[in-house]
Amino acid sequence: MTSSASDPVSLLTASHSAIDASSAQALLNAAIEAKSRAYCPYSRFRVGAAILACPANTPEVIGGASPKPVVVEAKLFTGVNVENASYPVGVCAERCAFGTAVAAGYPRIIAIAVSTDINPPASPCGMCRQFMREFVIGEDVCVAMMGRKAEETSITEGTIVKRFGELLPMSFGPEDLPSVKDSALVGE
Amino acid sequence: MTSSASDPVSLLTASHSAIDASSAQALLNAAIEAKSRAYCPYSRFRVGAAILACPANTPEVIGGASPKPVVVEAKLFTGVNVENASYPVGVCAERCAFGTAVAAGYPRIIAIAVSTDINPPASPCGMCRQFMREFVIGEDVCVAMMGRKAEETSITEGTIVKRFGELLPMSFGPEDLPSVKDSALVGE
Amino acid sequence: MTSSASDPVSLLTASHSAIDASSAQALLNAAIEAKSRAYCPYSRFRVGAAILACPANTPEVIGGASPKPVVVEAKLFTGVNVENASYPVGVCAERCAFGTAVAAGYPRIIAIAVSTDINPPASPCGMCRQFMREFVIGEDVCVAMMGRKAEETSITEGTIVKRFGELLPMSFGPEDLPSVKDSALVGE
Amino acid sequence: MTSSASDPVSLLTASHSAIDASSAQALLNAAIEAKSRAYCPYSRFRVGAAILACPANTPEVIGGASPKPVVVEAKLFTGVNVENASYPVGVCAERCAFGTAVAAGYPRIIAIAVSTDINPPASPCGMCRQFMREFVIGEDVCVAMMGRKAEETSITEGTIVKRFGELLPMSFGPEDLPSVKDSALVGE
Repeated sequence: MTSSASDPVSLLTASHSAIDASSAQALLNAAIEAKSRAYCPYSRFRVGAAILACPANTPEVIGGASPKPVVVEAKLFTGVNVENASYPVGVCAERCAFGTAVAAGYPRIIAIAVSTDINPPASPCGMCRQFMREFVIGEDVCVAMMGRKAEETSITEGTIVKRFGELLPMSFGPEDLPSVKDSALVGE
Repeated sequence: MTSSASDPVSLLTASHSAIDASSAQALLNAAIEAKSRAYCPYSRFRVGAAILACPANTPEVIGGASPKPVVVEAKLFTGVNVENASYPVGVCAERCAFGTAVAAGYPRIIAIAVSTDINPPASPCGMCRQFMREFVIGEDVCVAMMGRKAEETSITEGTIVKRFGELLPMSFGPEDLPSVKDSALVGE
Repeated sequence: MTSSASDPVSLLTASHSAIDASSAQALLNAAIEAKSRAYCPYSRFRVGAAILACPANTPEVIGGASPKPVVVEAKLFTGVNVENASYPVGVCAERCAFGTAVAAGYPRIIAIAVSTDINPPASPCGMCRQFMREFVIGEDVCVAMMGRKAEETSITEGTIVKRFGELLPMSFGPEDLPSVKDSALVGE
Repeated sequence: MTSSASDPVSLLTASHSAIDASSAQALLNAAIEAKSRAYCPYSRFRVGAAILACPANTPEVIGGASPKPVVVEAKLFTGVNVENASYPVGVCAERCAFGTAVAAGYPRIIAIAVSTDINPPASPCGMCRQFMREFVIGEDVCVAMMGRKAEETSITEGTIVKRFGELLPMSFGPEDLPSVKDSALVGE
């Protein structure tokens, strides 16, 4: 397999110095694999999510081509959609994965992958985009959306990669709340 | 006061044939006025929302310059943020307003205004954008975001207007759920 | 029709001095009627809610047999479940109704009715009980749960009435948050 | 230390054959320990949760005194509250822990512990009780609520233990949705 500039693995490795081809591949595979444990008896719409996340004290420097690459310890976390008979009480796969990461002390997200069974691939819902907003290390964090084709054909053909900033432009965030002390926010 | 092509009232009236200057002005004023009833003892961040909405059977034609303007019966609804001691249980102002409209039999949204006390004005959170997704009559529906300046200086200076499609690009929606019968969705 | 001590109308009128037989009946009918406007293409589970609510400055005195009945201005509000393609983004009927009431300046709830199409009638989900917690005027507020039989047979046979305190015992509420100033809370 | 019939460890071990004194103690300690990683810049109200959960195929038999104790493989999971600038988007500690367990293939909950910094200890909010409803192995599952005293004085003095059925009576659940196939639900 040759890798082009637009395939998911290349885009992920280019997006952050802590992501190499092997961890990018592991991220994508983990999202697909997690999907099998989705709890979705109501929608029958399975979602698996995976993220690469860093500890709270990780600096905000980003970019694979940085001359002095930042050494960060990124770890892989997964999540699934967890539905409830009272539909609004459920948790989406992305928020499930982020929660697991935060609870483990890894609240700074550097890459996201979401796997569903449809084509083209589903994008994260607005609520999950808002949840991510608090934890992505910057607007350039990659969100890889993987559809059925990613499993049936190839990851490259079945995956769309977008920057976080493209998915939630003009976002509402912590700095909009005047009463919040900056020092209380994650990683600061 | 002269009205320019980029002031909120002009943008709103240009966006849908059912919106004239008077209803656009009423929409903006209603968002500001609603804010005074916000229930936000935890964040102290007041939000007022107002929407113009139509009955379920309203056709999808949009655009003020349409040669055969569609006659629709638009009605004004308001909402506020309603917080809860368990923070995730609260409801944002936009969803409050949309819920009121849907319960009244007006589930097709043609314009949205949100008023907060900060500058620049706050945008709707991702969760509210997702909620809107189900009910906006099209991607061109205007979202008017009003900041403190809208009250202290002028509505034109203190307001930013965006198309819904600009706020939630590549959105996740009903058509992504294979099991959903189209006929069950709103307005169809 | 003779009314017994355990029928819904009697229980409602006994629970608060501002509720007479006519407003109790209106409350129950409104919950059933609202249900027809539910937006539930995903669950096909229709829910209608109705509440009697008072302005923010209403005193906390409660009980129909009070020697000096408190004169309060109670108003009727309705809500429906409003679902979303992203299930957790939806709003339940009860929260929809409460939001409408709060936005209208009526945040103190004195009675609740919920109508569904099943037997025995569905109870409010835990999330809605938590939402109510912030606004019920006391633990004795009645929650009337109406099933299909309420429409097919009679309201008395198809309705179960419980006190709010029975539905959310040992509840989590505003007073558990040390940082909250009491004066900021509703009606105080 | 002598253990009485009403101390948390005894109550937990009596509630399910898969819980011994050592796993009960580990559960309680884990909830306290997790709390240090809470992300709560808005409420400053730290919550840590821990659960003992089993794989999806675990049978429903419960009770420590069962003559033929069921051998189940229980595993410990933790969670924290993860707040968001848009308050309703946050996730409570309990749901965070349950999501982690479900994503790991352990969706059947046999015990829950929640730790906060107040006295008396905070109880799970209604939304979390509803979330639990889908995954607790029965109404007798213990919910241990731990306050500040559990750390400052002793776990026994600072902890209140309740059965799940006591916290969410007359609950709304999967069986209320007529359209749901039983076979789709967890553990069946």
